[in-house]
Amino acid sequence: MRTRKLPPVGWIGAGRMGFEMAARLAKGGADVLVWNRTREKAAPLQKHGAKVADQLTDLASREIVFCMVSTWKDVKEVVQKLLASNEKPKLLIECSSISLEGSAELRQLLDAKKIQYLAAPVSGNAKVIKAGKLSFVCSGPKKAYERARPLLNLIGINSSYVGEGELSRIVKICHNVFLGVVTQSLAEITVLAQKAGVPRHAFLDFLNQSVMGSTFSRYKTPAFVNLDFKVTFTPHLLRKDMDLGLDAGRRFEVPMPLAAATRDLIQSMIGQGWTEQDFATLLLQQAEASGLKLKPENVEVGDGLS
Amino acid sequence: MRTRKLPPVGWIGAGRMGFEMAARLAKGGADVLVWNRTREKAAPLQKHGAKVADQLTDLASREIVFCMVSTWKDVKEVVQKLLASNEKPKLLIECSSISLEGSAELRQLLDAKKIQYLAAPVSGNAKVIKAGKLSFVCSGPKKAYERARPLLNLIGINSSYVGEGELSRIVKICHNVFLGVVTQSLAEITVLAQKAGVPRHAFLDFLNQSVMGSTFSRYKTPAFVNLDFKVTFTPHLLRKDMDLGLDAGRRFEVPMPLAAATRDLIQSMIGQGWTEQDFATLLLQQAEASGLKLKPENVEVGDGLS
Amino acid sequence: MRTRKLPPVGWIGAGRMGFEMAARLAKGGADVLVWNRTREKAAPLQKHGAKVADQLTDLASREIVFCMVSTWKDVKEVVQKLLASNEKPKLLIECSSISLEGSAELRQLLDAKKIQYLAAPVSGNAKVIKAGKLSFVCSGPKKAYERARPLLNLIGINSSYVGEGELSRIVKICHNVFLGVVTQSLAEITVLAQKAGVPRHAFLDFLNQSVMGSTFSRYKTPAFVNLDFKVTFTPHLLRKDMDLGLDAGRRFEVPMPLAAATRDLIQSMIGQGWTEQDFATLLLQQAEASGLKLKPENVEVGDGLS
Amino acid sequence: MRTRKLPPVGWIGAGRMGFEMAARLAKGGADVLVWNRTREKAAPLQKHGAKVADQLTDLASREIVFCMVSTWKDVKEVVQKLLASNEKPKLLIECSSISLEGSAELRQLLDAKKIQYLAAPVSGNAKVIKAGKLSFVCSGPKKAYERARPLLNLIGINSSYVGEGELSRIVKICHNVFLGVVTQSLAEITVLAQKAGVPRHAFLDFLNQSVMGSTFSRYKTPAFVNLDFKVTFTPHLLRKDMDLGLDAGRRFEVPMPLAAATRDLIQSMIGQGWTEQDFATLLLQQAEASGLKLKPENVEVGDGLS
Repeated sequence: MRTRKLPPVGWIGAGRMGFEMAARLAKGGADVLVWNRTREKAAPLQKHGAKVADQLTDLASREIVFCMVSTWKDVKEVVQKLLASNEKPKLLIECSSISLEGSAELRQLLDAKKIQYLAAPVSGNAKVIKAGKLSFVCSGPKKAYERARPLLNLIGINSSYVGEGELSRIVKICHNVFLGVVTQSLAEITVLAQKAGVPRHAFLDFLNQSVMGSTFSRYKTPAFVNLDFKVTFTPHLLRKDMDLGLDAGRRFEVPMPLAAATRDLIQSMIGQGWTEQDFATLLLQQAEASGLKLKPENVEVGDGLS
Repeated sequence: MRTRKLPPVGWIGAGRMGFEMAARLAKGGADVLVWNRTREKAAPLQKHGAKVADQLTDLASREIVFCMVSTWKDVKEVVQKLLASNEKPKLLIECSSISLEGSAELRQLLDAKKIQYLAAPVSGNAKVIKAGKLSFVCSGPKKAYERARPLLNLIGINSSYVGEGELSRIVKICHNVFLGVVTQSLAEITVLAQKAGVPRHAFLDFLNQSVMGSTFSRYKTPAFVNLDFKVTFTPHLLRKDMDLGLDAGRRFEVPMPLAAATRDLIQSMIGQGWTEQDFATLLLQQAEASGLKLKPENVEVGDGLS
Repeated sequence: MRTRKLPPVGWIGAGRMGFEMAARLAKGGADVLVWNRTREKAAPLQKHGAKVADQLTDLASREIVFCMVSTWKDVKEVVQKLLASNEKPKLLIECSSISLEGSAELRQLLDAKKIQYLAAPVSGNAKVIKAGKLSFVCSGPKKAYERARPLLNLIGINSSYVGEGELSRIVKICHNVFLGVVTQSLAEITVLAQKAGVPRHAFLDFLNQSVMGSTFSRYKTPAFVNLDFKVTFTPHLLRKDMDLGLDAGRRFEVPMPLAAATRDLIQSMIGQGWTEQDFATLLLQQAEASGLKLKPENVEVGDGLS
Repeated sequence: MRTRKLPPVGWIGAGRMGFEMAARLAKGGADVLVWNRTREKAAPLQKHGAKVADQLTDLASREIVFCMVSTWKDVKEVVQKLLASNEKPKLLIECSSISLEGSAELRQLLDAKKIQYLAAPVSGNAKVIKAGKLSFVCSGPKKAYERARPLLNLIGINSSYVGEGELSRIVKICHNVFLGVVTQSLAEITVLAQKAGVPRHAFLDFLNQSVMGSTFSRYKTPAFVNLDFKVTFTPHLLRKDMDLGLDAGRRFEVPMPLAAATRDLIQSMIGQGWTEQDFATLLLQQAEASGLKLKPENVEVGDGLS
């Protein structure tokens, strides 16, 4: 029933996050045609009801096309190919983490073709999507947002509309600046609690259930407790986002002392060679600065997602 | 049925938080005898089934006595009066925010009388309690914790046991340090988002629903959006807790750059005369430092509690 | 005698600093031809033996031309006019505070005309020059430096050669970053000493004579003691230099926590409206953050220059 | 001639600094009787005309007694022994780096015996004294300062009187806080300049001759250039002084963001194991955080003292 009302969707990008997003959309009943550079990665989406396109241009006839790739360079490349087709979608929803400048350039490209454009970056990682807790922050024409909303609701738990143009991009940057500051502060207090005698898992168990706990603090807990730093977001990427935040702070004349201090701690971490693991190795740097050698606690702790 | 198993409880302190905690306990079916310096403040608890004591010593015969007052000076005074009685409780559960030193002195007092002692500070304010979202962090003998648990579960949503002695006190300090840092970071990014063009309510709506959202960020949202800074926690109290955290950082040789920077921003706020309102006026200071005069947005926003 | 060996010099710019530099050169016996946009400002240099040019192109036949104007825009404009002449100098010495990028562009312009170029920014202000305490930091071909040296020695007390290309520009930026940090730190400790009971003049008298005293701390003392904030360098200019330093820190992956913290305090000062006076109003901001209203001490204190 | 007017002096402490101070006093013509726990260390002072005492109490008959030992514990011990004698000096001048509290306790001890007391900590190290560049900051009765002045002038280059009581102690703390901040800032900009291509010796040569140069920056230059970190002041001692400064900042409600950030960087250095060398190893920590492995430049650079 519901699917009758849902417009046909094209989906570009079946990476770690794009895959899970498309899966939720398909499972929710939408008619989804997926394209991915490496076709095989998209294939398993078929078991959720999605179709897989051979060519990117096959998606041009879809009413709404989502884009979830890596960098602005990738976004530009795939959108230009899409626009080279005879047909064109009515609405493009771009969810990758790209800069304001990239987003504005994309808007020009699409405006020229009279395609509506919704900038819709997200909060969460692949596991968060799977757990149905992804949230979107959207900007662009309000009508585009209204059109997208039923689809966004199938993918995640919530979407917020923050205004015209590329405003959602700056909100996403603010979100990531906050994430950096929160992680460093968690590192400071977790190491302090541990040196005082409180095991990390006990400390974080309380914090996660306290008013300060967040989905984020919960899903970072296994890393902090058992020192599993498999990368979800690299120190270089976090530094880049902190710098985007500080750049915005300069432009809008907003001093950001905590963001700036955190940025330099991330730089120190990179300078000391912690570059290949997750940014949560901020905990390791904090421990070293405190004369402490951390060991995994080997305690089974939940991530609040599964 | 359940009440049969619950031990008779004495409750000291019917201030803003103590009142709500005792109310939940009574409503949950416990037999609660409350004493408060100003008797009238406790009286309304009777409609939830609690009794109100005329004298503090009336509570001495109760198996378990909770204490929720203001300062260590108050705690000491009421406990000494309680101990002056012929009878004595088996377990005292102290929930006020007192220092490690005070907590240790209290333990000595109670040990001398062979009364078990659970240090059990909390995360949340009066509204949080009412919404059933309070959490406890407990330290002391594990048995004392086991004994207290069913009662703690009636009052709040969760309790964590972190170890012997006064460890829960340091955890509470860490929690409050984090709260200070998070608030300052929220002030930085909220002002940045606003200067970029995103209304505060739209920005915080997204953030609250994102993976970074917490019960705390949600219940501070009305203050940030509508600039209602009725005090929940004063700048002086937050500065005191930041200093306790930094003191612990010194003792345990843990550098805390974000805590230290936040502490000085709170000091600056106090120096500039923001002392009588809620500590969330950090937002106002941040706005001034950004050349921005804030106005209430007069948007109805929820606090996630009611 | 000495003047025989000195090459004929052209001097562009008779602003506050340029005037004093040209004056010292002329008094030292050099044959100096000065051009300034507003001719009258240069006229008084004639009493020191300098000549004043009617047209900028009159300077093109001089063997060495100095440039001391305001911004890169000004530098570019005057140099392009100079190069439009039929004749050309052998060496151009650029002393303004311009960016690395501007300096590199200038080098290209001059290289194309086979004119040697020495980047030679300075440390000091007009009073410092008059007191004979200016110092130069130079980069470019070593030979250009050797050629310039006798002239630089007439103007200031010292010149340092730091290498090829635009290296002196980054050194100047580092110098100004240090100046910002030192000023903020002086503000912190001066206010602390005062609140403890030590008058500012007594405190700074000691500090200036201690191993920590510098020409800078001495010449800022009258401002700190008597609150005379007549502008020598605006908050906006200092913020710009801090940002150039932080940009360099990003490019070379050098975390600069003190520079970043100082930068944000300068931003806060600007945000609060301290924009038209000297950057030393950092002292006023520090006092306000400390709940202190400063008053001039009205004590005669030297600046170490006159 | 001059010696006729100088009062007989007792000198307690012939450590690295005390030795050089007593030597200058004796060479200047004063009649100095020195006592040191290990007599042999004081013996070489005889060649400058000083006498060496066998017992501490031998100094009690001297009109003025200086004290230059290590800690407040040492000060208390030697002063109590001195006061146990039948005779007593008229004035005691205490130059060690002790706390406000120690200094106040000492004043009570001496007041009770009607002995004048001048608190007179110093700025400089042994080499600075030898070079005649030591400076004193004095507090206590103005008359005591006037009495002491001719002797202080023989020892150092300058003395400042800052007021009654223990004010000089807080000034010394401010001085050391500044020293910490300046060193960290020097580390930041030196590493930045180096990564940009400027050798450390060239960079510091300019800085030392610029308006920002100080006796301190000059005598730390050999350490920064050639990485000789023989201890002059340990990281632990500097951290202690930073903490004294931050404590004073709390008491007087003065936020000290740069001091606090520097303090934590010193803590990080200690946590990472740099504890036995000079605090100037802040440079090494800064280099590591910048991904740079420093090597001695092996360039002969002066320290501005010899």
